[in-house]
Amino acid sequence: MTEPTPRQDLLTVHVPLDAGRAYDILIGRGLIDTAGAAVAALGGRRAAIVTDATVGALYAARLRTSLERAGLQAGVVTVAPGEASKSYAGFAEVCDGLLALKVERGDLVVALGGGVVGDLAGFAAATLRRGVRFVQVPTSLLAQVDSSVGGKTGINAPLGKNLIGAFHQPRLVLADTAALDTLSEREMRAGYAEVAKYGLIADPGFFDWCEANWRGIFSGGPEREQAVASCCRAKAAVVTRDEREDGERALLNLGHTFGHALERLTGYDSARLVHGEGVAIGMALAFRFSARLGLCGGQDAGRVANHLALAGLPTRLQAVPGGCGTVESILDAMTQDKKVRDGALTFILARGIGQSFIAPGIDRAAVAAFLEDELASHRDL
Amino acid sequence: MTEPTPRQDLLTVHVPLDAGRAYDILIGRGLIDTAGAAVAALGGRRAAIVTDATVGALYAARLRTSLERAGLQAGVVTVAPGEASKSYAGFAEVCDGLLALKVERGDLVVALGGGVVGDLAGFAAATLRRGVRFVQVPTSLLAQVDSSVGGKTGINAPLGKNLIGAFHQPRLVLADTAALDTLSEREMRAGYAEVAKYGLIADPGFFDWCEANWRGIFSGGPEREQAVASCCRAKAAVVTRDEREDGERALLNLGHTFGHALERLTGYDSARLVHGEGVAIGMALAFRFSARLGLCGGQDAGRVANHLALAGLPTRLQAVPGGCGTVESILDAMTQDKKVRDGALTFILARGIGQSFIAPGIDRAAVAAFLEDELASHRDL
Ligand SMILES: NC(=O)c1ccc[n+]([C@@H]2O[C@H](COP(=O)([O-])OP(=O)(O)OC[C@H]3O[C@@H](n4cnc5c(N)ncnc54)[C@H](O)[C@@H]3O)[C@@H](O)[C@H]2O)c1
Ligand SMILES: NC(=O)c1ccc[n+]([C@@H]2O[C@H](COP(=O)([O-])OP(=O)(O)OC[C@H]3O[C@@H](n4cnc5c(N)ncnc54)[C@H](O)[C@@H]3O)[C@@H](O)[C@H]2O)c1
Ligand SMILES: [Zn+2]
Ligand SMILES: [Zn+2]
Repeated sequence: MTEPTPRQDLLTVHVPLDAGRAYDILIGRGLIDTAGAAVAALGGRRAAIVTDATVGALYAARLRTSLERAGLQAGVVTVAPGEASKSYAGFAEVCDGLLALKVERGDLVVALGGGVVGDLAGFAAATLRRGVRFVQVPTSLLAQVDSSVGGKTGINAPLGKNLIGAFHQPRLVLADTAALDTLSEREMRAGYAEVAKYGLIADPGFFDWCEANWRGIFSGGPEREQAVASCCRAKAAVVTRDEREDGERALLNLGHTFGHALERLTGYDSARLVHGEGVAIGMALAFRFSARLGLCGGQDAGRVANHLALAGLPTRLQAVPGGCGTVESILDAMTQDKKVRDGALTFILARGIGQSFIAPGIDRAAVAAFLEDELASHRDL
Repeated sequence: MTEPTPRQDLLTVHVPLDAGRAYDILIGRGLIDTAGAAVAALGGRRAAIVTDATVGALYAARLRTSLERAGLQAGVVTVAPGEASKSYAGFAEVCDGLLALKVERGDLVVALGGGVVGDLAGFAAATLRRGVRFVQVPTSLLAQVDSSVGGKTGINAPLGKNLIGAFHQPRLVLADTAALDTLSEREMRAGYAEVAKYGLIADPGFFDWCEANWRGIFSGGPEREQAVASCCRAKAAVVTRDEREDGERALLNLGHTFGHALERLTGYDSARLVHGEGVAIGMALAFRFSARLGLCGGQDAGRVANHLALAGLPTRLQAVPGGCGTVESILDAMTQDKKVRDGALTFILARGIGQSFIAPGIDRAAVAAFLEDELASHRDL
């Protein structure tokens, strides 16, 4: 058997963390089939793949072959696809699966899948035998541009998303952009919400670029690798400066305070709402709320919503299938969020496109009034 | 209400870890009633007590009163007593309980109980919102001399003990030696196995002292605080030099490779075997195995077994109620242990009392033959 030749146009983003924890993100088409050499170079005897049934059926055998060809003992743990696997039960399932594969301290866990698999497998790796190394092979756009980078791992609790977890950096991230060819349109769009997010947070030029080039990301042109690399560079820079989210890393939560509340209110049912859709609505809300507070112009808020809508994303509370309840229920769902400190609400707001900032101590009544009007605008449509 | 006066003879052991993680262990009678001031000094608004039903009924109200008097909002999460709570389900229960108490990132988790509660609450604290601070208030002898110090936290998996967990150091340890007055004789003896362990590992003088003074530890004389302080000093020194068990910290596992296997084989059923009893048998086995390998004298092995037996502890496989199966089943149970690297067995063996060392690569057949003879000696009894 001959090893497939990697494409020449591989992009690399370096994450320069200290204490021996620096790592590379490789971005390019076909990386799943050439993963073995890169993973084997990390050392270790065994590599246990964690994946979900959908991604596993498409790519696990190819990844496994590549790992075994590189001399690693490989095994696979498969969970059900969907957010529901990011639970206490999913955690137990993955840990027990890894133990059954006899994963020891020097071995590697390889997360093959979207953000759900990455977060879940990463948390299992963080805690299995009090910590084994892991590699991210993100296969959704969201995972390639966001969740696979930065070392946040975890699961959901009944009382809220991502409330249990650990900081555990991967040793390597392999973003095979060809894997996105099999991703559904809907998941592609959801991931695209996070791409646009980087422009909205701190890079107006990147948002301009997105407005001009977003179709190439979807269709699999070279814009795809460029976008993934830009996002990873942006995320890597933030994570390096603020690994544990004591400060600016919170900016990455633009749109997420609202978004997480909507996910909670729809019971994490991806038939109704997926993470990126919640984030899209959340970002549109954050800009409209910023405009209402006089922080940014109404035309900025309009431009954000228009672009997200053009890419096929929802931008209004009313777009949530089955509805998202009353203002009170949204506020309640938000105050279970991690970004609540001593009862006060913290939002990411914006002074314009690419000018987001952390706004702590936002008045609950002001949020309530804003949401009231947002829901009322529904009745006029 | 007046604050009870702490006894003057409070002993303090300092654990000098770096990066702001140094902490104190306070040892003395009555510390539960004066805990509030020490805990409040760490900062934070809320202190959530995690305990088990037995310890909670005895001490939770007193601890809570002390915390509230010091201005902290306090709540209690109670699990069932016993090793079975150190499970995935127990972990979910404690995390959900802490979330229901609205524990936020700046708040504190206070583990009130034996090693089970300490390991479980510590792991929940390590992962809740990706890490909140915690305080250990150990109430069993084992927890005071061993599990509450050093930051190892975790739960058991069906495939083995302590296979899931995190390193998460407490911010403070309050060892109220008066709490041991309500501990059962059996648990007292089990904890005493870990006390004797420190002598056997590296301190022959302390083992001499134990032989002369063990009764004072049990009866609550000043020997009790002295022993707890000596053990904490020994453990703190090892942990400071090797926090993550890359080396010498493994010495603390003297007797534990055998011991854990016995716990597994008895289904973690404390009616049959508690941790310290497994350790006592394991230490006696480790010394007899060392003698058999010609590493130490048979009289050392005899002296160890005699002293443990005098203190009421089991020292033979046959002492396990209901039996512990065949040699093969013991070996299988041992090879699921964390101390297995690349399939080879690692033991802590001894060249004499206080001269233990890490012995990797021990031949499985040699262990099998030794266990065979140990089990055979049963039939002669
Ligand atoms: N750790 C972080 O920093 C971070 C950041 C953002 C989001 N997240 C988390 O990420 C999760 C969402 O990630 P996601 O959107 O990737 O969800 P996901 O992992 O559920 O993937 C979405 C769906 O796409 C399928 N899929 C994935 N890759 C595929 C492919 N190549 N071909 C065909 N189908 C494929 C999956 O099976 C799944 O059904 C959330 O749980 C969120 O909390 C984490
Ligand atoms: N983290 C570590 O470094 C470390 C080290 C050694 C052992 N351990 C763990 O510790 C656990 C064993 O600890 P343990 O022996 O304390 O078990 P435990 O916590 O189950 O306590 C033993 C029993 O004594 C009761 N009890 C505790 N304090 C009492 C008191 N003051 N009065 C009356 N009853 C009281 C408890 O309710 C329980 O029934 C095991 O799970 C072991 O793996 C951890
Ligand atoms: Zn997101
Ligand atoms: Zn022990």
